Amino acid sequence: MTQQTRADGRALDELRDIHITRGWGQAGEGSVLIEFGQTRVLCVASLTEGVPRWRKGSGEGWVTAEYSMLPRATAERSTRESVKGKQGGRTHEISRLIGRSLRAVVDVRALGENTIVLDCDVLQADGGTRTAAITGAWIALHDAVEYGIEKGFIRNRKGEPALTDSVAAISVGIIDGRPMLDLPYEEDVRAGTDMNVVRTGSGGLVEVQGTAEGRPFSRDELDQLLGLAESGIDRLTALQQASLQAQLGQRI
Amino acid sequence: MTQQTRADGRALDELRDIHITRGWGQAGEGSVLIEFGQTRVLCVASLTEGVPRWRKGSGEGWVTAEYSMLPRATAERSTRESVKGKQGGRTHEISRLIGRSLRAVVDVRALGENTIVLDCDVLQADGGTRTAAITGAWIALHDAVEYGIEKGFIRNRKGEPALTDSVAAISVGIIDGRPMLDLPYEEDVRAGTDMNVVRTGSGGLVEVQGTAEGRPFSRDELDQLLGLAESGIDRLTALQQASLQAQLGQRI
Amino acid sequence: MTQQTRADGRALDELRDIHITRGWGQAGEGSVLIEFGQTRVLCVASLTEGVPRWRKGSGEGWVTAEYSMLPRATAERSTRESVKGKQGGRTHEISRLIGRSLRAVVDVRALGENTIVLDCDVLQADGGTRTAAITGAWIALHDAVEYGIEKGFIRNRKGEPALTDSVAAISVGIIDGRPMLDLPYEEDVRAGTDMNVVRTGSGGLVEVQGTAEGRPFSRDELDQLLGLAESGIDRLTALQQASLQAQLGQRI
Amino acid sequence: MTQQTRADGRALDELRDIHITRGWGQAGEGSVLIEFGQTRVLCVASLTEGVPRWRKGSGEGWVTAEYSMLPRATAERSTRESVKGKQGGRTHEISRLIGRSLRAVVDVRALGENTIVLDCDVLQADGGTRTAAITGAWIALHDAVEYGIEKGFIRNRKGEPALTDSVAAISVGIIDGRPMLDLPYEEDVRAGTDMNVVRTGSGGLVEVQGTAEGRPFSRDELDQLLGLAESGIDRLTALQQASLQAQLGQRI
Amino acid sequence: MTQQTRADGRALDELRDIHITRGWGQAGEGSVLIEFGQTRVLCVASLTEGVPRWRKGSGEGWVTAEYSMLPRATAERSTRESVKGKQGGRTHEISRLIGRSLRAVVDVRALGENTIVLDCDVLQADGGTRTAAITGAWIALHDAVEYGIEKGFIRNRKGEPALTDSVAAISVGIIDGRPMLDLPYEEDVRAGTDMNVVRTGSGGLVEVQGTAEGRPFSRDELDQLLGLAESGIDRLTALQQASLQAQLGQRI
Amino acid sequence: MTQQTRADGRALDELRDIHITRGWGQAGEGSVLIEFGQTRVLCVASLTEGVPRWRKGSGEGWVTAEYSMLPRATAERSTRESVKGKQGGRTHEISRLIGRSLRAVVDVRALGENTIVLDCDVLQADGGTRTAAITGAWIALHDAVEYGIEKGFIRNRKGEPALTDSVAAISVGIIDGRPMLDLPYEEDVRAGTDMNVVRTGSGGLVEVQGTAEGRPFSRDELDQLLGLAESGIDRLTALQQASLQAQLGQRI
Repeated sequence: MTQQTRADGRALDELRDIHITRGWGQAGEGSVLIEFGQTRVLCVASLTEGVPRWRKGSGEGWVTAEYSMLPRATAERSTRESVKGKQGGRTHEISRLIGRSLRAVVDVRALGENTIVLDCDVLQADGGTRTAAITGAWIALHDAVEYGIEKGFIRNRKGEPALTDSVAAISVGIIDGRPMLDLPYEEDVRAGTDMNVVRTGSGGLVEVQGTAEGRPFSRDELDQLLGLAESGIDRLTALQQASLQAQLGQRI
Repeated sequence: MTQQTRADGRALDELRDIHITRGWGQAGEGSVLIEFGQTRVLCVASLTEGVPRWRKGSGEGWVTAEYSMLPRATAERSTRESVKGKQGGRTHEISRLIGRSLRAVVDVRALGENTIVLDCDVLQADGGTRTAAITGAWIALHDAVEYGIEKGFIRNRKGEPALTDSVAAISVGIIDGRPMLDLPYEEDVRAGTDMNVVRTGSGGLVEVQGTAEGRPFSRDELDQLLGLAESGIDRLTALQQASLQAQLGQRI
Repeated sequence: MTQQTRADGRALDELRDIHITRGWGQAGEGSVLIEFGQTRVLCVASLTEGVPRWRKGSGEGWVTAEYSMLPRATAERSTRESVKGKQGGRTHEISRLIGRSLRAVVDVRALGENTIVLDCDVLQADGGTRTAAITGAWIALHDAVEYGIEKGFIRNRKGEPALTDSVAAISVGIIDGRPMLDLPYEEDVRAGTDMNVVRTGSGGLVEVQGTAEGRPFSRDELDQLLGLAESGIDRLTALQQASLQAQLGQRI
Repeated sequence: MTQQTRADGRALDELRDIHITRGWGQAGEGSVLIEFGQTRVLCVASLTEGVPRWRKGSGEGWVTAEYSMLPRATAERSTRESVKGKQGGRTHEISRLIGRSLRAVVDVRALGENTIVLDCDVLQADGGTRTAAITGAWIALHDAVEYGIEKGFIRNRKGEPALTDSVAAISVGIIDGRPMLDLPYEEDVRAGTDMNVVRTGSGGLVEVQGTAEGRPFSRDELDQLLGLAESGIDRLTALQQASLQAQLGQRI
Repeated sequence: MTQQTRADGRALDELRDIHITRGWGQAGEGSVLIEFGQTRVLCVASLTEGVPRWRKGSGEGWVTAEYSMLPRATAERSTRESVKGKQGGRTHEISRLIGRSLRAVVDVRALGENTIVLDCDVLQADGGTRTAAITGAWIALHDAVEYGIEKGFIRNRKGEPALTDSVAAISVGIIDGRPMLDLPYEEDVRAGTDMNVVRTGSGGLVEVQGTAEGRPFSRDELDQLLGLAESGIDRLTALQQASLQAQLGQRI
Repeated sequence: MTQQTRADGRALDELRDIHITRGWGQAGEGSVLIEFGQTRVLCVASLTEGVPRWRKGSGEGWVTAEYSMLPRATAERSTRESVKGKQGGRTHEISRLIGRSLRAVVDVRALGENTIVLDCDVLQADGGTRTAAITGAWIALHDAVEYGIEKGFIRNRKGEPALTDSVAAISVGIIDGRPMLDLPYEEDVRAGTDMNVVRTGSGGLVEVQGTAEGRPFSRDELDQLLGLAESGIDRLTALQQASLQAQLGQRI
């Protein structure tokens, strides 16, 4: 499959250049700038004691996410959602996806009654913003949990870690009949089928969202896309682990 | 697999009682009340000449959907979205899913510059409201297209039908390790993995949305769920075709 | 007066076909589908313990109503109020009218600190939606009060019933100089004067809202309209009582 | 009936001190400050060429009204509607009432494609704000129509005046069993029945809105209230005519 | 400088006719109608016990302001902010300015945990509405503090007055190269530089907001404008003191 | 004055470390990341042909700005304005300030009917965000104008440049009686007087906004603050010019 190349010269199963700057800023209990090619997402974790009202007294924590895009992150400027007075459906949908993905690797009981909010702000968008956001947000979440343990907000019980695994995500799609990994914007708009896969570091599927943009897809195509996605997520998982070893502020 | 039964006595691969009342009301170019057990969704199609501004002059039509739930469709009353002053993320997400699903079987060029809006209002909710909405909305869409052809808004070109296929949807999930078809609310909240599958009558996948609510799921479990879903959609497709033969106002 | 007939063949003082399905759904402490000809309104009562903050500690209950119309209840589709981000003036006005009408027959002291919300959703509209809503909502309210007594939320003190009377409503109008009862949409738009009357079962007036749409009306015309309305409400009161005797789910 | 007196010393059928300052300000094509006792409403008419889109090409004009209350017009400050982000139901309801009342005496055809907006802002509220608003707004409307004729926007065709009559309004109510005219706030909150009557100068009824706040009312009580209201409106009509003779800026 | 005159005949350093009616209405703990020429602003103070949540337990009070303009205060009608569903940037900006200006002369500790809200509603606008609002609001604030002391809400400790000084404001600008005091609308739109100065009665600067609308201004021009403004504020301070001696309801 | 030092070791008249990365991203016709110490603002210019409706046909262009802050740009997370459903007063105020400041150096006639929007998003906030935004936005504006000239949208007429000067801004304040330049957050909250000065490269004042947060300030203090600000702006102007010589993507 790797013989064929694409507009940007990549093989069909090749990721774009991925860069992670852990500790990008000083604000936030975790701060990560993640780049998938020209896509740049700033993921900042905010840890606060206490939980939303509906969860009080449960002994359990809460992790949630908010995704947003700067107005000129894209080729054409779009109106700010704060100016429109409401968030759009796409924003809601992606925020919910990121939150669910992260909660899949959090033991809310071990977290205790603490809340971690992940703000994922897309500074520049070139396809794959939601998958970059999930992948980067996990690192920021990791750092916020470590901070919480260090400061004593989160009790570190052996064998009951608040973070049970890592999680990362990638997009795959079928373009002109060929399954491809990690689509930039120009491929994304041409894709007949578009799929986002979220998976844990140890291999468990968390979300599979496949959509036929043009003609419907077959079970066989679904299987090929899942295979591609899993190989990409293996690579992202390795990069996440590498970033945890890197110095704060260093771009890897 | 069919030996084991559930709280409501169904086999694991059995649908709830499905009822379709085509021509439920007189308002709308298509009007369908669809029931999946206690879930009741009113799907009304509105056909208007013309398209949204961004599509004018393209020669292509547009199909979109709006999903909503009455405040006391559920066991506990929720605040009306018109009172809150905005639609929630879940409402946006489902509206977008229904619209995409229907557009997958529409040839917008054959539709001409006409718009069809599908209003899917959940009168009573007991799980599976989005899948019932898609399944019922397709019938209402069908009737609106027929109306448009009859009135001459839509030109009926042989071999280029505006509606290229049927589409239906069903939920599946894993509860206590067992994959099950068509989850009512009480099963839905207990499901570890929850999946909605949208498929055409001729077998093409349109949307696959699998979510791990509890622990992540494996490729093998994904395959089992897809199998269950496909058998359910085959049955829904047959019911859709039967409803097109039934008299208006008759509950089948 | 009864010799003259109308577009739909009715006499001037004749109601449309009225149907009431008590116990239409399982959600809600009261659930009524009421039909005035082609007008169909679903009235669902929600009983909750407790009252709004401003009433806490008063020992008194609260009854309120929310009226809404599905977007394609009418001949032309209108934009959803949740999409617009606010409720329109007409919606507010009718919601307030229904709430006031019901509170006129409720002894809030006997109700105790409980709240009953009546959701009146117009599924199909052909004139008279507010009067159908009041007439149907009273039945749903009745069932919610009975439920509250049965479950012990509402104490049933002899001689101090929480519901002191029934209440029903009807529209009347003057078309081409002739007073008529229970106007469908096509008569409503032609009416020079339009009046809605809300009255208790025992004959007390609760609301009289007369509006000159065209030329102003005289005291004599006002008297004739009130007479017509009272005869219609007598008949609706009888139907309400009959519905209380009917089986749940039965359409009378 | 006039023997009995009230808290403020008035007879049951006596109006409060009514003052009208026509030409209160320079902004607006009509500007009237009207006082019903301590109730003060500023009514300003804005005439613009053209009509709302839905009326274009009809050859007919449009008259509408917006009612609002300053936050501290009342004994307790209420939150500004612009801060809340939406107008309340009461505001909508009264705005619509004022607009309908004025349109009852406007010949929209003679007005031509011009729009007049009446802004009725309550500077101080002590009951009867909507009736003061209607009574004052008619004078401002009159001046805007005169302005339009003078400037040539409105063609003055003999026998087809744009303004066909005057209109005024008053509140009446039953307090401790006694019908009373023109209720200030302290009477209004105690009224068992509350009625607003809008009538033309020549005696035609435009709106009759009677509401039982406590126990329902009888046909006989309704008749008494209408009688009281008509006598009050006769007096208001005379004051309106007097103000048209007074100098601009003079308080009569 | 005083030789040259302006469109309205004033000298460059001359204020418009200033009128103050203290005790304009009965609602509010302070009520002032202030006029700067044709600009008329109603300033009403509302004193309530308690402070916003974020200040509770601090022992300190809070003073804030809300500025708004009636829709037809100006030559052309603008849409009501409550209809738009949000306050504009200009409204926010001026509300914040008035609040800050008043707080500069309030000892929040001496005020105790009480809140005073100043509603400044522009009834007619002809330039300088924010400066008129500040100047009038201070008088209303003064009366509300006096009321609070009299009623015992505010403890009057000798040497620790809640109000430490007076505050007033005026606009200045450069038109055709000439610095001028107190600009009406027609001068304001032509001003190359526009400045608002807020100063205490004893001479301390509270706010200096200079803006180049056309070409930038020099330090020397800034100095001239400050000088003009200070002379105007001296005069306004004298008028404020005079109004405190006048009878309630009297226009000085 | 320069002997005394501050918490971060700077002299009273010393700027923080200023860094400018021109061409930070590929999206936008101008893209600048500007840093004033820990304050980081991303300024992106969007050039589009055409102007807002109210300016059409004037032959003149339009420049405007939108300021916003990421939720966790600060030490404590604040709620997103898109979630609240409206922009706050501070956001509005700063957006308007940036727009006015830039327009002071734009010849809208030479710009032609083109619009440039400057999005200034604060990624990290440590005081002085508005002054950093103005200083950085000017560079992005410069690049967008150059782009427009190169692409032929903007006609480059000799002697009539669209950009007539540069503009930059700095904050100054009085802390414990000492005037200081370029306040970080911890100084800003302690400042008794706070002033923002916007000035062109050639020395013309564009905005002077001085506010007494604590006690009022004197004319003499105002003069000292202006002097400090001017020296800081001289230095910022030099840095802006240096950035125009630097390579795209290089941090100077």
